[in-house]
Amino acid sequence: MRAAIIGYGGVGRALVQLLNDKKDYLNKEGFQIQVNYIIGRNGGVYNSEGIELKDFMEFGAGERDITKYPQGGNKEISFQKMLQNRDADVVIELTPTNIKTGEPGMTHIRRSLECGINVVTANKGPILLEYKELKAIAIKNKVQLGIGCTTGGALPSINAGIMDLAGSRILSIEGVLNGTVNFIINEIENTGTTYIEALNKAQLLGIAETDPALDVEGWDTAAKLIILTNVLMNEEKSLKDVSIEGITKITPEEVKNCLNKGYKYKLVGRAVKENGKTQMTVNLEKLDPAHPLYGVSGRNKAVRYVSDTLGDLTIIGGASGVIPAAASVLRDLININRGYKFSE
Amino acid sequence: MRAAIIGYGGVGRALVQLLNDKKDYLNKEGFQIQVNYIIGRNGGVYNSEGIELKDFMEFGAGERDITKYPQGGNKEISFQKMLQNRDADVVIELTPTNIKTGEPGMTHIRRSLECGINVVTANKGPILLEYKELKAIAIKNKVQLGIGCTTGGALPSINAGIMDLAGSRILSIEGVLNGTVNFIINEIENTGTTYIEALNKAQLLGIAETDPALDVEGWDTAAKLIILTNVLMNEEKSLKDVSIEGITKITPEEVKNCLNKGYKYKLVGRAVKENGKTQMTVNLEKLDPAHPLYGVSGRNKAVRYVSDTLGDLTIIGGASGVIPAAASVLRDLININRGYKFSE
Repeated sequence: MRAAIIGYGGVGRALVQLLNDKKDYLNKEGFQIQVNYIIGRNGGVYNSEGIELKDFMEFGAGERDITKYPQGGNKEISFQKMLQNRDADVVIELTPTNIKTGEPGMTHIRRSLECGINVVTANKGPILLEYKELKAIAIKNKVQLGIGCTTGGALPSINAGIMDLAGSRILSIEGVLNGTVNFIINEIENTGTTYIEALNKAQLLGIAETDPALDVEGWDTAAKLIILTNVLMNEEKSLKDVSIEGITKITPEEVKNCLNKGYKYKLVGRAVKENGKTQMTVNLEKLDPAHPLYGVSGRNKAVRYVSDTLGDLTIIGGASGVIPAAASVLRDLININRGYKFSE
Repeated sequence: MRAAIIGYGGVGRALVQLLNDKKDYLNKEGFQIQVNYIIGRNGGVYNSEGIELKDFMEFGAGERDITKYPQGGNKEISFQKMLQNRDADVVIELTPTNIKTGEPGMTHIRRSLECGINVVTANKGPILLEYKELKAIAIKNKVQLGIGCTTGGALPSINAGIMDLAGSRILSIEGVLNGTVNFIINEIENTGTTYIEALNKAQLLGIAETDPALDVEGWDTAAKLIILTNVLMNEEKSLKDVSIEGITKITPEEVKNCLNKGYKYKLVGRAVKENGKTQMTVNLEKLDPAHPLYGVSGRNKAVRYVSDTLGDLTIIGGASGVIPAAASVLRDLININRGYKFSE
């Protein structure tokens, strides 16, 4: 499998490291990958025989500008160039998420699929905005579109819905999908601190972003919920279809009262089919101990599906971080290599 | 996909019903199946153009002897005959489990794979005894062996290990894998009754078998654990490698004490790699509320994997019953139809 990595930030670097560290193990498992392109903001690295990942990482430890890499670094290397060369079987799209336009990922994904190249992406934007169209392009061109990393990183939420519940209809989705929010609620539970102080701590620890709005106002949870709903319940929902509540108004008193009654607050994304219509909400909910998502805490995430013939399925996991996110991209690559047709 | 169903008991009947009920839905999803053979103990039904499932089920409602079915019922129809005809792409092996010899399933699975026919099975015996050999035969003949139903029915334990953790190494397995045992423990927790009375109730409700030894003495949990360990941790373990404890000595007082301390008893199957060796146990363990398997109760099951790069993954679900078991067989059929290579 000849790969082109587009977007070289934290997840991209973790992926290169993973592919290098796991090379022997993956070879033994029947998975050979050769990275022909690593493309950043202003140029990249190209080697038609495969970039020497170990050597490239050693170079990268001392120099951030990858175009200066002696074995193939070049300011002229671009996504466009890669398309012209036609020597990649899969594009790994890892540019930053933009949930308004989806760009630049949208163009990368669409053009790659149109050119008959498989795509694996960690980029929520394009999938949130145009999943149906992108899937149709993939089917038309007989290639695969792997999106496992867009809805909870290492948590195999998409996988579980497509592969583990194959043949059954998903009737509802409930998810605790944002690790930063979990961390903040846990912090208030454990220390009785205010929301603002808990948020500050999360920012200090690098868990919350400098602009935390996406997480704490519920947009990230809503985006993941929409992707899951569109992919697994065959809908065409967008942000305007979701009633969204964040956690910014939560008080230590409320949290304490809730705990005293034996419940726990979780920010739950929920999609339920009622009278033929799928209702979607993101709400701060009090869960009782019998609820399968009650115990999901810290940086873990979870999703629960109710299906017609395979019963309820709850999956809990998906530790946050760039390594698990990269491992989730690798999972899609391997499953595609094993012949799986996500879109048919 | 042309299928031969070998073994026509509860799961077989549920599968025929499911394939009939879901026909339109499955066709729309790109899955076409035609059942050419349904083979029971003394003969079966054969139609080279596909048995009319709806009509066959209506016949079956009034008559148990399937060889009397007018459209193709025949005492001469046998597994051997099916192999000679060579008009099946997949054998669905559903004969009763024998964990000592694996027969008759062992012969059915081995011969089918040798003849280049895919196999999906719900039969624990052959997989417990000879997984490695059967997998090697499948690889040699470039066919697939689907075993998802052997380790918890609808619970996607094998799927999660192979597909959801693809590319990561599984370091340990913990499972609450027997619904009957869960039911009995729950009953003692809720009513303070004795083990024997709880078992009697489970038998009355048809949850426990007349001979409950396999479940309550821990053999069923051990068998499932061995299959998971051999498949997912690349081991060659058998029953003699597992230290097995059942639940037959549990007392209402112990259960009450455990509950009072905030813990819950679960029969846990566990495989852990220590100093390069995989240790396996089936023990009645006290789990605290923070443990991901604490909440698994009633007829649900669960398994927790710890992996190197994809973190911890806990999956909870897998309601018992013939419909979920049949749906689990269907899941394997669909994933094979979608091109997945379980064995490579």
